[in-house]
Amino acid sequence: MFSIVEQREREKGRAMAKNIQSLERAAAMLRLLAGGERRLGLSDIASSLGLAKGTAHGILRTLQAEGFVEQEPASGRYQLGAELLRLGNSYLDVHELRARALVWTDDLARSSGESVHLGVLHQQGVLIVHHVFRPDDSRQVLEVGAMQPLHSTALGKVLSAYDPVAHSEVVEVEREAFTPRTTTVLTDFESLLDMTRARGWAADVEETWEGVASVAAPIHDRRRMPVGAVAVTGAVERLCPSGELRPELVAAVRDCARAVSRDLGAGRF
Amino acid sequence: MFSIVEQREREKGRAMAKNIQSLERAAAMLRLLAGGERRLGLSDIASSLGLAKGTAHGILRTLQAEGFVEQEPASGRYQLGAELLRLGNSYLDVHELRARALVWTDDLARSSGESVHLGVLHQQGVLIVHHVFRPDDSRQVLEVGAMQPLHSTALGKVLSAYDPVAHSEVVEVEREAFTPRTTTVLTDFESLLDMTRARGWAADVEETWEGVASVAAPIHDRRRMPVGAVAVTGAVERLCPSGELRPELVAAVRDCARAVSRDLGAGRF
Repeated sequence: MFSIVEQREREKGRAMAKNIQSLERAAAMLRLLAGGERRLGLSDIASSLGLAKGTAHGILRTLQAEGFVEQEPASGRYQLGAELLRLGNSYLDVHELRARALVWTDDLARSSGESVHLGVLHQQGVLIVHHVFRPDDSRQVLEVGAMQPLHSTALGKVLSAYDPVAHSEVVEVEREAFTPRTTTVLTDFESLLDMTRARGWAADVEETWEGVASVAAPIHDRRRMPVGAVAVTGAVERLCPSGELRPELVAAVRDCARAVSRDLGAGRF
Repeated sequence: MFSIVEQREREKGRAMAKNIQSLERAAAMLRLLAGGERRLGLSDIASSLGLAKGTAHGILRTLQAEGFVEQEPASGRYQLGAELLRLGNSYLDVHELRARALVWTDDLARSSGESVHLGVLHQQGVLIVHHVFRPDDSRQVLEVGAMQPLHSTALGKVLSAYDPVAHSEVVEVEREAFTPRTTTVLTDFESLLDMTRARGWAADVEETWEGVASVAAPIHDRRRMPVGAVAVTGAVERLCPSGELRPELVAAVRDCARAVSRDLGAGRF
């Protein structure tokens, strides 16, 4: 027997099961608009997601009212909305790892003379949550919010080596050969992860982008969980002048990762 | 009389009306988590939004599955999720105004030696969609995704003066006195907007932040619509050495705004 209040709660629970589907569909629309074409008409969105036009339009209209999508006045096509940028900024504001890493990554960029990225596991990739520009006068594009592949980048390899969830993602995904140097065969990749764990850092020498090298180390929290990774990235000519990564650069990245880990409460040993 | 297909569409339309409510509630949760406390328990979220706990939990569980919220393992409290950062970054990728302004705002930061912001109207404020750091070695915090008030900042005044939607927002909002110099009385503020339209630019001399001055000009698109504003911001001692804004700084900001407008297809006259 249930009280009236409990019964009402249960009825609300059942009504809610329907609502969840609309949320999932709305999220799928936002993902659709975030990839590929970026500006889509109602018919494209409805057919891509297998929805009736009326259903798709109701969700889009609500997303538009909330600022999550915008409609191009001329073409009537939909694109992502400004509210996502505001919320993404608020996400960063409470990001403890990022807050703790601000000063240390700044120091690393200065001492190395190269750009520094801080990444966390998100879905099947590395989400960049902080990016310090290379300290010179060159024009650079901010990569906060961008995704990097797990299997080819230094950040991705570190996360795959230390985070079991990242590892289970990377063995599942298609490991695309971005360059002739990308490791795509699973057994080879597992050996790379073994080496990463053995020496405590990972490299990416032209395995993702031609001409670009990177070195990354893991960041742990007070529960010794791998919560992210920090990397120095730059031209392969500067990072690997003799064909090998400069040892002082590897040391600087590992020092930075240790400093951030200690700030997060990780033990020294 | 309706065909079966039409009838089915109508039924779907009715089913959808419910779904829209769940989307609105989900959006309200994200806004709640974006302001104030930032980390909230289920009870706080449910009571803040006037929802039954079961209803709130169903929405939160779906938002969590989609990456829009995350749950702190230790406390069980909810916070915004990483997917918002990824989507916010995708929003910027298709932002035509921002893409057109990248080079011009970079040049403006170099020539002025100060930081440059690009803002658009969003809800009741100015959303920063691009931020070029002051070109020196100082540590600066990226403000992309942050909001500025309409009534006190140079960007906000320009948008209020030129965009009727911004104007209707700013006369409605509470115009808080951030400093003794903030204009809060509506008639005084309307005079300020008249002056802004007459001279084509707006200033903020310690009206939002003590010690900080800013000057902004409007950006128009090919339909002569005000689509955003660009501003130079810096220490009042550097921007207003004799008590007045340096005229060459005002000229540089207006030049930049005109250049971006022309890139967007606005006419020269």
